[in-house]
Amino acid sequence: MTSSDGSHGPAKGEESVAERVWLREVGPRDGLQNESVSVPTDVKVELVERLADAGLTSIEVSSFVHPKWIPQLADADEVFARIRRCPGVEYSALVPNERGLERALKARVDAVHVFMSASESHNRKNINKSIDETYPVLQPVIQQAHAAGLPVRAYVSTVFGCPYEGRVPIEQVLRVVDKLLELGADEVSLGDTIGVAVPTQVTAVVEAVARRAPLDRISLHFHDTRGMAAANVYAGWLAGIRHFDGSIGGLGGCPYAPGATGNVATDDLLYLFHGMGVETGVDADRLQETAAWLEEKLGKPLPSHARQVARSACAG
Amino acid sequence: MTSSDGSHGPAKGEESVAERVWLREVGPRDGLQNESVSVPTDVKVELVERLADAGLTSIEVSSFVHPKWIPQLADADEVFARIRRCPGVEYSALVPNERGLERALKARVDAVHVFMSASESHNRKNINKSIDETYPVLQPVIQQAHAAGLPVRAYVSTVFGCPYEGRVPIEQVLRVVDKLLELGADEVSLGDTIGVAVPTQVTAVVEAVARRAPLDRISLHFHDTRGMAAANVYAGWLAGIRHFDGSIGGLGGCPYAPGATGNVATDDLLYLFHGMGVETGVDADRLQETAAWLEEKLGKPLPSHARQVARSACAG
Repeated sequence: MTSSDGSHGPAKGEESVAERVWLREVGPRDGLQNESVSVPTDVKVELVERLADAGLTSIEVSSFVHPKWIPQLADADEVFARIRRCPGVEYSALVPNERGLERALKARVDAVHVFMSASESHNRKNINKSIDETYPVLQPVIQQAHAAGLPVRAYVSTVFGCPYEGRVPIEQVLRVVDKLLELGADEVSLGDTIGVAVPTQVTAVVEAVARRAPLDRISLHFHDTRGMAAANVYAGWLAGIRHFDGSIGGLGGCPYAPGATGNVATDDLLYLFHGMGVETGVDADRLQETAAWLEEKLGKPLPSHARQVARSACAG
Repeated sequence: MTSSDGSHGPAKGEESVAERVWLREVGPRDGLQNESVSVPTDVKVELVERLADAGLTSIEVSSFVHPKWIPQLADADEVFARIRRCPGVEYSALVPNERGLERALKARVDAVHVFMSASESHNRKNINKSIDETYPVLQPVIQQAHAAGLPVRAYVSTVFGCPYEGRVPIEQVLRVVDKLLELGADEVSLGDTIGVAVPTQVTAVVEAVARRAPLDRISLHFHDTRGMAAANVYAGWLAGIRHFDGSIGGLGGCPYAPGATGNVATDDLLYLFHGMGVETGVDADRLQETAAWLEEKLGKPLPSHARQVARSACAG
């Protein structure tokens, strides 16, 4: 359902404008980190290669957080050592501190992703530090990454709501964003960690943050917990955002389980954008093949709507 | 998460404007019609009463389609005879033809819902007539309903896509809508029967239809098959639509099953609108209680995101 197949694509006047968005694939890291299934290194390597082959140009490969905290990704160094790299593709990793950065540089990452929360209590629970104590940890990471010629992306969690504090005041989000930009972050990713955002809230937050940073330095990271992810992505897109995080097949969510949560699926984002005539550079069929392959490797179905429809079509 | 609890509700200047939408509950008819479980009349009666008690003022109670076609709703007459009616609540039914209307009038329905498709092949498959052959069937139903003082709502199926024909040209939708308005339909409900719509398409269709009928005579009916329902509702709301169909708990979809499809859940619509500070008149907690009660009666979980989150919270 691309713009070529119907009369309801972009309006006539817009067709000459190359409508384009860029998807950040976070499945290998954010997805696998939240899967209970342990995944062999071979599968991780093949997954990353398949994602690049499908046209994704920004892939978060793994995490250099200490294996004590995320044992699922303890093989980050090996995965990076083994992946076949495509030109034009950015292979990034999550980096918590200077020690993680050392490993990341050795692994030849193309981009460094740091992280913290917009809400005090989530930041403490997640990284055992206050917000103010976190900046001095991130500062040398950002500086040294830049010194090594690498861009730095900063995830801000709980932007749209915190499990402990409820809605997070927009002023608090702006304080964190301002500080991260001041520290040199090249991009901020605004995360709806617990999947509570609604579209008008997205509009308000994006408009406020866009007064601090150009739109192309802002990305959005949604979870589909309450079924709002596509609506929130759409609101972000209307507000001018062109970078969105997604996880193949909704990896990291739990299908057929009560309270299924997790990243919005990259494949569902493809449906949304391709249906609206917006280019992503990603081949939806190849991504589906990879999702089907991954389901086999994981021994369980993935929760994206696209996968459910595809499985249903196969079964029918 | 109503407008009173956060800084991201309607913008300051809008707060004096009573933002309000009206939800049409279709669970007892469209939901139960598509459930494989057979539901006792007692449960149907209690469901309708509970929905009204939760604040829903438009409830599609059942169908007067011949029981040969929809055996699940063969007890329509009895359900209508037994429900306790609240003042201000519209108890409606699906009516296919004059014979169905006779039963509906005897049952004292408050509103008559007729139906057809925007695409020729779906219309033929669904009601065994061409589009042109359908109008003469609907015309006397609409006339006689009006003569009895009842409003008529016309469902148009496959507005955003047809399982046999793919995308349906907007001109074809407009032809059907024009004819239904000409026949006297008081409201048209534009249905995304197979859940393929994307938001920009919704905007285009609503804008086109709104040139034929005032916005308050148009409603939208979405399925969440591809995870786009909330985004499509949001696009419709931005375009000025204030009437949306929903089904309690996503009734009629199939949870934990490949290819789950079905009506967008009324409870998920409540999350969307209440989160945006838009009033619905519906008590979200009471609706959740009713959904939980219904799960017990059906002996299975309902698929809405709200239900998944609620069950997860209970289990945790």
